[in-house]
Amino acid sequence: MTHLAIIGGSDAGISAALRARELDPTADVTVVVADEYPNFSICGIPYYFTGEVQPWQSLAHRTSADLEATGMTLRLNTFATGIDVAGRRLEVRNPNGLSEQIAYDELIVGAGALPSHAGITGLDRLGPADGVHVIHSMGDTFALDHDLTTRQPASAIIVGAGYVGLEMAEAFTARGMQVTQLQRGPEVLSTLDPELGALVHQELDAHSVEVITNTTAVGIEKTPAGLAVTGTRQGESFQQTADLVLVVVGVRPNTELLERAGASLGAGGAVVVDERMRTGLPHVWAAGDGIVTHHRLLGLTYLPLGTTSHKQGRVAGENAIGGDRAFAGSVGTQVVKVFDLVAARTGLRQHEAEAAGYAPSTVAAAADDHKRYYPGAHPIQFRITGDTTDGRLLGAQLVGRRGTEVAKRVDTYATALHAGLAVDQISDLDLSYTPPLGSPWDAVQVATQAWDAQHRLAATPA
Amino acid sequence: MTHLAIIGGSDAGISAALRARELDPTADVTVVVADEYPNFSICGIPYYFTGEVQPWQSLAHRTSADLEATGMTLRLNTFATGIDVAGRRLEVRNPNGLSEQIAYDELIVGAGALPSHAGITGLDRLGPADGVHVIHSMGDTFALDHDLTTRQPASAIIVGAGYVGLEMAEAFTARGMQVTQLQRGPEVLSTLDPELGALVHQELDAHSVEVITNTTAVGIEKTPAGLAVTGTRQGESFQQTADLVLVVVGVRPNTELLERAGASLGAGGAVVVDERMRTGLPHVWAAGDGIVTHHRLLGLTYLPLGTTSHKQGRVAGENAIGGDRAFAGSVGTQVVKVFDLVAARTGLRQHEAEAAGYAPSTVAAAADDHKRYYPGAHPIQFRITGDTTDGRLLGAQLVGRRGTEVAKRVDTYATALHAGLAVDQISDLDLSYTPPLGSPWDAVQVATQAWDAQHRLAATPA
Repeated sequence: MTHLAIIGGSDAGISAALRARELDPTADVTVVVADEYPNFSICGIPYYFTGEVQPWQSLAHRTSADLEATGMTLRLNTFATGIDVAGRRLEVRNPNGLSEQIAYDELIVGAGALPSHAGITGLDRLGPADGVHVIHSMGDTFALDHDLTTRQPASAIIVGAGYVGLEMAEAFTARGMQVTQLQRGPEVLSTLDPELGALVHQELDAHSVEVITNTTAVGIEKTPAGLAVTGTRQGESFQQTADLVLVVVGVRPNTELLERAGASLGAGGAVVVDERMRTGLPHVWAAGDGIVTHHRLLGLTYLPLGTTSHKQGRVAGENAIGGDRAFAGSVGTQVVKVFDLVAARTGLRQHEAEAAGYAPSTVAAAADDHKRYYPGAHPIQFRITGDTTDGRLLGAQLVGRRGTEVAKRVDTYATALHAGLAVDQISDLDLSYTPPLGSPWDAVQVATQAWDAQHRLAATPA
Repeated sequence: MTHLAIIGGSDAGISAALRARELDPTADVTVVVADEYPNFSICGIPYYFTGEVQPWQSLAHRTSADLEATGMTLRLNTFATGIDVAGRRLEVRNPNGLSEQIAYDELIVGAGALPSHAGITGLDRLGPADGVHVIHSMGDTFALDHDLTTRQPASAIIVGAGYVGLEMAEAFTARGMQVTQLQRGPEVLSTLDPELGALVHQELDAHSVEVITNTTAVGIEKTPAGLAVTGTRQGESFQQTADLVLVVVGVRPNTELLERAGASLGAGGAVVVDERMRTGLPHVWAAGDGIVTHHRLLGLTYLPLGTTSHKQGRVAGENAIGGDRAFAGSVGTQVVKVFDLVAARTGLRQHEAEAAGYAPSTVAAAADDHKRYYPGAHPIQFRITGDTTDGRLLGAQLVGRRGTEVAKRVDTYATALHAGLAVDQISDLDLSYTPPLGSPWDAVQVATQAWDAQHRLAATPA
């Protein structure tokens, strides 16, 4: 019987615990959870604030009772404070504030990430009580909810226009608040090319979100007129005031415990693991947003995503009880719904591929989600990146209206990337077709054919 | 300059012509079209009858003018009557009824398929003027439309409950007709397992379509009470009467021209071609519903589908002008919308895999299309078939409500089948996730994990 201790009650930790219990019902699995909300869907929080998800308890992927029914032990409100690698003991502070030790045979660390502050001053002093928020945990959620309910703020500045920032802009708008969205770069959703980010920007405009790009927030302060975000905008100084400020500018890996235990840091400052989730410390595994990401096109990088944490946790859970599973690697697939638009990407963009040593070219295309003669057809906008030397597919970005199956169309590219297909092999794929839902050449193939036509790698005419 | 003649103005022929013109703008391409409706979307005809597609002209993928603008020549209302292989001449009957010869360097035959009559007597005597219809061409479409408009039939019997039969049941229902659907086998949509066909059956029930299974139609006759379909039902004789009868019981390859020219027939009685669409006759290529289908899991079979015809035509068009492209093979991906349900399949089912020499096992699973906490989640029903000896994915079937992205979820499996992935490698795929549109393990992965859990191929617990 393996005594398995796991730090972290989010995606990676719980996936590891579930997999270990599934494969070895004799395994003694203890999960140390810093708060009392294990296995909550952090990605779902914006939909709590839109009002679409009620009550907050339904954000749990599984309840504590569900989890315990699998045979794992949950230690809630228990904070991991140290790892004695040689002695195989985990040191925790229990809910009573007392230090305690948990002996283990194997340890999996899923300590996750922490919200980045991006050097914005004031975030050390100002918090939820002042109307200044981050949103990374259920605790943050309750604090924001309390603030919204009690103060009824009429306006908000959201610093950041990435996935969470955009979703929260939708949520605040749904609550009747006037939202200003600040973005450092030239266009929102900077994980996509600006040509596609511009479509998301239009969608924000259409829903009366004020978008201010090319603006770097440097500080937040309380003023008589409200909370002021100060910064720079194209060389000029910038200031805007609102009743509430939400800072969502990304995350940084939470590495402290493993660093102190002697683990190495790598890409993005995250803990280095191999593809089997070994940290290099004996009997210590790690998974999730605190570790480097093995990427099928980039090698080692740092790309924290919930889907990846689930996969890494599952691998760690299997290996910690004696398995030999390798994490097959991310291809960076991501999707976001912003009001009535869906934007997705997988693989690499032009500049990312160039930086990684590929010889990429990126081609734009548009294709209807289904036959235009059938009601409700809408164009999907694509950008396809392929390698000009060998024709390999490197990445795809797509934006379409909700209902155009963009989220699952990107999966065809993701699967093709996983398999290492060439751009022109996308046309070989036997994709489904019926006029209400597709075309004889699916939109994903129309887009890659546009790339091919431009590069004519496929053709060998007489 | 290649003089390329093409027989057939549907998917295969037009795809070939477009590809040839795309790759070699000097190619002289003549397409011989038996009627005056080249490049019509035959798959869209049911939606003309629902009233969703109007006018019928919008069913054209491209107009004749669009096609001619690419530089091809269309010979409409021109019927190919013979091939002089040695002399490289195509004999046609022109619109004036006169015989004419067209010299060619290369010939591509896309003669398509003909509606099957399944041995039903009366189909030789009774036709549209009697209220008895098939639906395979625009001519059939106009004849049915005329009958519906002039006679206003109140009831219809549809013989067959495959894709077109189901779509036409929806169309007739939308027009206020009472529909009886006859199915030879034990469940509708026999291309899926009956457990999933039953869901489609329920959908038909819910829309007041009378479904009669286990019933073989053997004859159609005119009676004073209307058109009578006679047959056998579980050993008993069967008769039902309606104002209109539509027979949609599949197709058979139209091989006559190529057979007379000396081509060989193979699977399903279709013309044998290699993966480059060579018929074995010098300078004669073929593509589409008249030829055998190269299938990545089955080898040679006969599986006529529009998507496949497009691909085969594109290969033939490329090779006829000097290219060297191979058709990569079908995996049998199909999807149909029936009222508010979508049913899809790819790869092989249990009995098909057994017949092909695999050692399959099929496991059922259900998974929500997106996180249940977000409004509008619906379960998708899956059946996953994998090989028990090596874990290879062999097939997937799925049924879900419209809007659950079933059509593009099947594409993930289709792409995985194309790449030869194992069932447990589906969990390695980096599929997209956002709560309104998916789950951290996408539904397609939940389903394959259910297969894995049952077979535990993936697990190597201590």
